[in-house]
Amino acid sequence: MYRSHTNGELRINHSEQEVTLSGWVQKIRDKGFMIWVDLRDRYGITQLIFDEERTPAAVMEQAKNLGREFVIQIKGKVIERESKNTNIPTGEIEILVSDLTVLNEAKLPPFTIEDKTDGGEDLRMKYRYLDIRRNPIKDKLIFRHKVSIAVRNYLSNQDFVEVETPYLIKSTPEGARDFVVPSRMNEGQFYALPQSPQTFKQLLMVGGMDKYFQIVKCFRDEDLRADRQPEFTQIDCEMAFVEQEDILQTFEGLTRHLLKEIKGVEVEDFPRMTYDEAMRLYGNDKPDIRFGMKFGELNDFTQHRDFKVFNEAELVVGIAIPGGASYSRKEIDKLIDWVKRPQVGALGMVYAKYNEDGTFKSSVDKFYEEEDLKKWAEKTEAKPGDLICILSGETQKVRAQLSAFRMEMGAQLGLRKADEFAPLWVIDFPLLEWDEETERYHAMHHPFTSPKKEQIPLLATNPKEVKANAYDLVLNGNEIGGGSIRIHDKETQAKMFDYLGFSKEEAEAQFGFLMDAFQYGAPPHGGLAFGLDRLVAILGGQESIRDFIAFPKNNAGRDVMIDAPAPIDDEQLKELHLKLN
Amino acid sequence: MYRSHTNGELRINHSEQEVTLSGWVQKIRDKGFMIWVDLRDRYGITQLIFDEERTPAAVMEQAKNLGREFVIQIKGKVIERESKNTNIPTGEIEILVSDLTVLNEAKLPPFTIEDKTDGGEDLRMKYRYLDIRRNPIKDKLIFRHKVSIAVRNYLSNQDFVEVETPYLIKSTPEGARDFVVPSRMNEGQFYALPQSPQTFKQLLMVGGMDKYFQIVKCFRDEDLRADRQPEFTQIDCEMAFVEQEDILQTFEGLTRHLLKEIKGVEVEDFPRMTYDEAMRLYGNDKPDIRFGMKFGELNDFTQHRDFKVFNEAELVVGIAIPGGASYSRKEIDKLIDWVKRPQVGALGMVYAKYNEDGTFKSSVDKFYEEEDLKKWAEKTEAKPGDLICILSGETQKVRAQLSAFRMEMGAQLGLRKADEFAPLWVIDFPLLEWDEETERYHAMHHPFTSPKKEQIPLLATNPKEVKANAYDLVLNGNEIGGGSIRIHDKETQAKMFDYLGFSKEEAEAQFGFLMDAFQYGAPPHGGLAFGLDRLVAILGGQESIRDFIAFPKNNAGRDVMIDAPAPIDDEQLKELHLKLN
Repeated sequence: MYRSHTNGELRINHSEQEVTLSGWVQKIRDKGFMIWVDLRDRYGITQLIFDEERTPAAVMEQAKNLGREFVIQIKGKVIERESKNTNIPTGEIEILVSDLTVLNEAKLPPFTIEDKTDGGEDLRMKYRYLDIRRNPIKDKLIFRHKVSIAVRNYLSNQDFVEVETPYLIKSTPEGARDFVVPSRMNEGQFYALPQSPQTFKQLLMVGGMDKYFQIVKCFRDEDLRADRQPEFTQIDCEMAFVEQEDILQTFEGLTRHLLKEIKGVEVEDFPRMTYDEAMRLYGNDKPDIRFGMKFGELNDFTQHRDFKVFNEAELVVGIAIPGGASYSRKEIDKLIDWVKRPQVGALGMVYAKYNEDGTFKSSVDKFYEEEDLKKWAEKTEAKPGDLICILSGETQKVRAQLSAFRMEMGAQLGLRKADEFAPLWVIDFPLLEWDEETERYHAMHHPFTSPKKEQIPLLATNPKEVKANAYDLVLNGNEIGGGSIRIHDKETQAKMFDYLGFSKEEAEAQFGFLMDAFQYGAPPHGGLAFGLDRLVAILGGQESIRDFIAFPKNNAGRDVMIDAPAPIDDEQLKELHLKLN
Repeated sequence: MYRSHTNGELRINHSEQEVTLSGWVQKIRDKGFMIWVDLRDRYGITQLIFDEERTPAAVMEQAKNLGREFVIQIKGKVIERESKNTNIPTGEIEILVSDLTVLNEAKLPPFTIEDKTDGGEDLRMKYRYLDIRRNPIKDKLIFRHKVSIAVRNYLSNQDFVEVETPYLIKSTPEGARDFVVPSRMNEGQFYALPQSPQTFKQLLMVGGMDKYFQIVKCFRDEDLRADRQPEFTQIDCEMAFVEQEDILQTFEGLTRHLLKEIKGVEVEDFPRMTYDEAMRLYGNDKPDIRFGMKFGELNDFTQHRDFKVFNEAELVVGIAIPGGASYSRKEIDKLIDWVKRPQVGALGMVYAKYNEDGTFKSSVDKFYEEEDLKKWAEKTEAKPGDLICILSGETQKVRAQLSAFRMEMGAQLGLRKADEFAPLWVIDFPLLEWDEETERYHAMHHPFTSPKKEQIPLLATNPKEVKANAYDLVLNGNEIGGGSIRIHDKETQAKMFDYLGFSKEEAEAQFGFLMDAFQYGAPPHGGLAFGLDRLVAILGGQESIRDFIAFPKNNAGRDVMIDAPAPIDDEQLKELHLKLN
């Protein structure tokens, strides 16, 4: 037995007990005649005391040779501390050590194992096993576990069954890229790792499983952007005999439960907004509604004068920055520089101060009258003291630019509070989106998403306008989940593949099994998937997912700790019937 | 809303309520003026009644056109049945239908959707989504979910943290075969899918996670035997600051909890047996101790006469078949034929009847005296009325043969009862096993297993005799879990790689990160992994795992439903920098 208690467990009422503890040396204070050691494990820190007068000389000598991160086991007596530490639960006691065993020595770690470390990202990743010893990382992994098990128990109590779907499936050219796995036993053939268990969960609905979920790894071989991982975890769900409303209700329930259980936050209201509305009011399909600054569209109040920039724009749109009227010229120039950064890409920004005294002062005073500026204030819901900022240009671009600016200002003004949670359903997504590169329509969600029934005829005439029974759950400006009602009959599914440019043969080869299944009594069904990495990060009040993943990969898809991927030997390649190209 | 209730929900106290139900048509009885339909969903079956006198004519007409497995929605009134069915919970009521909507038609399924189906294995696998509609399969998947969530909650309540380890890791030539995943972004390099999260869970211990578990998919590209899957699920566990005893206690607790929670069975006793003892008494390292028939080693009582077969044998060993003395010559010949089957491989079998009256009659009476036979009876614990069966030959082979025979006789005599649970720890496994093919020692468990400390010197002189701190949990003759105390210092680990024939460079290239980690303060640690597929099957009283897996692969590693693996196109191969060989 290596320990009678953990290092987070002992209290004043354990006084005089003989205990055995094990753990890592966090800190040593050596006063010569007295040595204090902070002993750490996952559960906390307990102070050890070695005292010339009360500790055997040999043990005292051993203690002098300890170093940071040594793994030790001690025996000793719990005693009351003279100077108590009220910051930690064990702060009232210390252990007078009578016996010390070094279980393992430690080289000096390449960075300090402290809450605030001196280690940079690269070093921390290479020695991730040391990084995990730090509270901020350890706590995030434990937090993730708590969220996962809360999700599982909630869904299980709602009659959902967790079913494990296969990881070795079939490659489909549709959508983002598959990782493939060569088959040794089937020469020239490959499995693929699932981008999601989409078709399997639909087959489970055809199979009468009724309510399915799975917390499951998914894989996508995309060029990685910051904060994307080639393997990621989803809470994948599907329900039969449901309409959109049933699904929204069910997962509102789950989200409400998590916020309450994990964060102690009660959120009653899950507002809903159509995709079109979200784009119009926030320039974005995942608006952060913790704060206002809604878009005001200003075409009607800007294009009647001689200001060419606005007159030539497809969209003129503004937001009101609370309190911005008091910004100095220099401060405003900084904002203008911000929107002109290449990542944002605006050519400039027009502004109008709505002064506290009700007067206006704009950067385009030679073109516009006060009555115009009043209209702008009205449309952007500006109050006296605010700054109206206006961008113009091609609709899609200008919305993205103003949305980025709005988020930046929200952050600058402290309006995006980590402890405030504002969920939002965005509904009625378009079924299709036009892809400039391939010059054809792609499924916005995926090809199994059901169009709104009454709009199916529109597919032939104006496909862009067709809306889907598709929805995203947005939390604090992040899409944490998304799903749809699925097509459940062969004819509609075949038609959809046709619209998406699949030949009949391609559709049959790739998804024949699903269309077959639809002919044997498929129930109406739909579902949703949450991104667990993101959900956990947001619940944890963070935007970056990486520290909520035990062993993440870097932006090149590499695990720098184990040094993967790596070459394999020729023998293995030969067995797989492969050659390097 | 597709339904107000499920089909397992309505009782006599719902009488007169108007309800909406949805589901599959299980059965139709059409008497012309009256039609009964069994409506099925995951939750049960509810009987619908269409009655010429009370049902609208149009609905009556619709009902006549229903077919098996049609998906329908009905509205109607709950009424008391005239002839009640006490076999199902909804058997006291039926629904008088007023409204019927066909949600989806169904082609005639390729096999009957009944508890006993007419579908063969191949057909059931191709249409697995229909197979899952059958209660025996559906119930097994729900059972698996219950076991999984019980495991998770138990371990979580014991302070274990579920940590997700990566699926895209590094290939290591050690042990069974890796599936590999070519990296598009890292030309000529490959990830591997984990055969187990072994090194990661050890790194989590180095990282101070203290108690880790994960229910996780693992992958092994082996030639498949019946009832093996290329992807399988493990309950993977690891603990720091533990000795073997702590681990056995912890997982006895888990197993006891599962047996109680899932099966309602209380098992107090988890006996322990060394590997050597198990081999000696049962010829097997995973003995089924639900029944006796222990081996009696008979060399000392058989090799003093002129019977050449025994005299030349390395081992002569017998078991007593309860009640076997009454077997006819024909019955005994059948047993002899059984052990001579090529799958078993014995050359013959000697037997001795220990008659009820205390006399003996053996097949080798011309060589042996009654006093010899008495000794055989004593050593095999035979009682009057039993049949002593004796095999001889090379120790390892003859043990395997007699073990197979013992299991067969246990089955024939009904001693392997599905509802009886007899767990057993087999401990003190050998560290190494000699591999004839490669002519070197392999790690019996894996190269991270700790030898018993006091036996480390033996490694140099008599490696075969070195025992490991390794243990298996056996349930009803199946290994359901196995694990070990791990090496946690660099020197021992390096020495172990050396003994296993790794060059220093190979060890460094493949496991350098782990040995590095051991230098930064690795705690003593150990763990265990359960095979979830097998565990669930055994708890479910079955020996075959396949029906406890939603979408299993066949013996060629193929998913015949989705037809995977499959060729990928040249474009994709090119992007992966690969050519077919």
